[in-house]
Amino acid sequence: MKEYILGIDLGGTNIECGLVDREGNIKIRKRCPTQKEKGAGKVLSNILSTAREVISEVKSRKYKIIAIGIGTPGAVDQETGCIVGGAPNIPGWKGIPLVPALRKEFSLPTFASNDVTLYALGETMFGAGKGKKDIVCLAIGTGIGAGIVIGGKIYRGAIDGAAEVGHTTVKLDGKKCKCGSFGCLERYASATAIAEMGRKASRKDTGSLIYKLAGGDAKRVTAKVVFNAAKQGDKAAEEIVQKVGWFLGAGIANLVNILNPEMVIIGGGVAKAGGILLKIVKKSIETYALEVNRKGLKITLGKLKTDAGIVGAAALAWQEMK
Amino acid sequence: MKEYILGIDLGGTNIECGLVDREGNIKIRKRCPTQKEKGAGKVLSNILSTAREVISEVKSRKYKIIAIGIGTPGAVDQETGCIVGGAPNIPGWKGIPLVPALRKEFSLPTFASNDVTLYALGETMFGAGKGKKDIVCLAIGTGIGAGIVIGGKIYRGAIDGAAEVGHTTVKLDGKKCKCGSFGCLERYASATAIAEMGRKASRKDTGSLIYKLAGGDAKRVTAKVVFNAAKQGDKAAEEIVQKVGWFLGAGIANLVNILNPEMVIIGGGVAKAGGILLKIVKKSIETYALEVNRKGLKITLGKLKTDAGIVGAAALAWQEMK
Repeated sequence: MKEYILGIDLGGTNIECGLVDREGNIKIRKRCPTQKEKGAGKVLSNILSTAREVISEVKSRKYKIIAIGIGTPGAVDQETGCIVGGAPNIPGWKGIPLVPALRKEFSLPTFASNDVTLYALGETMFGAGKGKKDIVCLAIGTGIGAGIVIGGKIYRGAIDGAAEVGHTTVKLDGKKCKCGSFGCLERYASATAIAEMGRKASRKDTGSLIYKLAGGDAKRVTAKVVFNAAKQGDKAAEEIVQKVGWFLGAGIANLVNILNPEMVIIGGGVAKAGGILLKIVKKSIETYALEVNRKGLKITLGKLKTDAGIVGAAALAWQEMK
Repeated sequence: MKEYILGIDLGGTNIECGLVDREGNIKIRKRCPTQKEKGAGKVLSNILSTAREVISEVKSRKYKIIAIGIGTPGAVDQETGCIVGGAPNIPGWKGIPLVPALRKEFSLPTFASNDVTLYALGETMFGAGKGKKDIVCLAIGTGIGAGIVIGGKIYRGAIDGAAEVGHTTVKLDGKKCKCGSFGCLERYASATAIAEMGRKASRKDTGSLIYKLAGGDAKRVTAKVVFNAAKQGDKAAEEIVQKVGWFLGAGIANLVNILNPEMVIIGGGVAKAGGILLKIVKKSIETYALEVNRKGLKITLGKLKTDAGIVGAAALAWQEMK
């Protein structure tokens, strides 16, 4: 019987479940709304019921589930399997005994970790980083998260706080961040920051393509709108993309100078901008990273797309079950 | 018979050799000028002859040398034991088969690594970091070097380029650095940068204490002079120390956000400034590092003093011989 991992991705909107084979391919999927507004208890029971659905389908076929992997916002205590914090998106999630609950329900080895960390592991094992061992992987969306993989394994730091790349400072007298610091990378290169810059530009010049593509409503400017306007040659949008890429490159260069990875993978919504952004990022890294550390360094876009969450969660379990 | 490691520290001025026991204590020392101006071949033969002197003294006593550890400027290829570069201070040093030469001469297991990296390992095993496993250790002198210790072992990165903290950017539109980048930490917090700021201040105001302590010659202003003036309440010097500590803290905060270490150790000549600098550095880290990563973080001055080189070199060999 072919062996599978049950991969679970807990998102702010949906819970996604799927069976993942040793090569990272997905069989059988189920999805269910997270319903975080109904509280942490409801979220947990939604996870259990979605997983149950997949498992009951499996029973009617010839698949064998050998373990469960789950990615969650926040940090997971690797000893107890409980959520230890950092998940402001799901009220009450801190303290939830995520791993014990899944183990009790399904009697399977269960492994959990932060979702961005698992995204990095997924890209390493099944995506753009296949064959590499020392990788930094960024997930650029509303914020900037990251995962560090050293020797093929997740690097967690002393108290699971590593890879907070979004809050590294590239401009110590720069914009104030909600974390309390100044000049955080997140304030210049996240989708939130890009949309903010786009809104400002479109208000300044309502003749700009940014304004038009947002349907004549500055409030509706998103990072995607800014990148689309830039691709169509809009000056203001191009300037924003230039700034974003330059800051992003400086932040990545700091990672490269500190960690000397083999590869940097850029994923998340903002990575969809593709070449237009990557070109500037690479130029900036050339300026800010030491030549010796740039030698042999590969900078690339992530390969895992919508499945990144499920595949990343399964990656952890596959690694642990080896 | 008690076992020892022969620790060798290759400095720009002197070669220091010593026998180091399992607790990091030093017995028998020898020193010899490096004579780098006479070429790399002469430097190598000076290393061999200084080591030979120690070993011949040992033979007349009841000590047993089980291995050799050596710290060198630049990077060492861990496969071949040859110098692979990054030692501009010793002309011709690149390519020198350091480990093979020592092995051939003394028929002992021999281990070599970059001197700053070994300083970090020495502080971890025998100094301020005793008992900790995840440590970042800075050596602030002419430049800013660093070593990263993860799980009690040196972290080298993909091509031995990790921990280039001096060239991380804290101000992407800042001062140009000789590495080609901008706003490097080294340009604001190294002894070189501090002396430069001190000279500028003393030229601006020849009534300042900096100018007086430098004997009325701006050219003779050093980092030490600036710190001494600040300790005596000189306004201009205090401003420099404030700036240096603030930048240093921002750079360390980036390390803390990326690596989440248990401890940060500040060593090297600039660390001699002590509390006056450390106080500001801690304040800056409080501003720039995430609270979760600051929890339980210890920031301290290095404990290994003049022996740091020998002890660090021996630390590597002790670890490898385990």
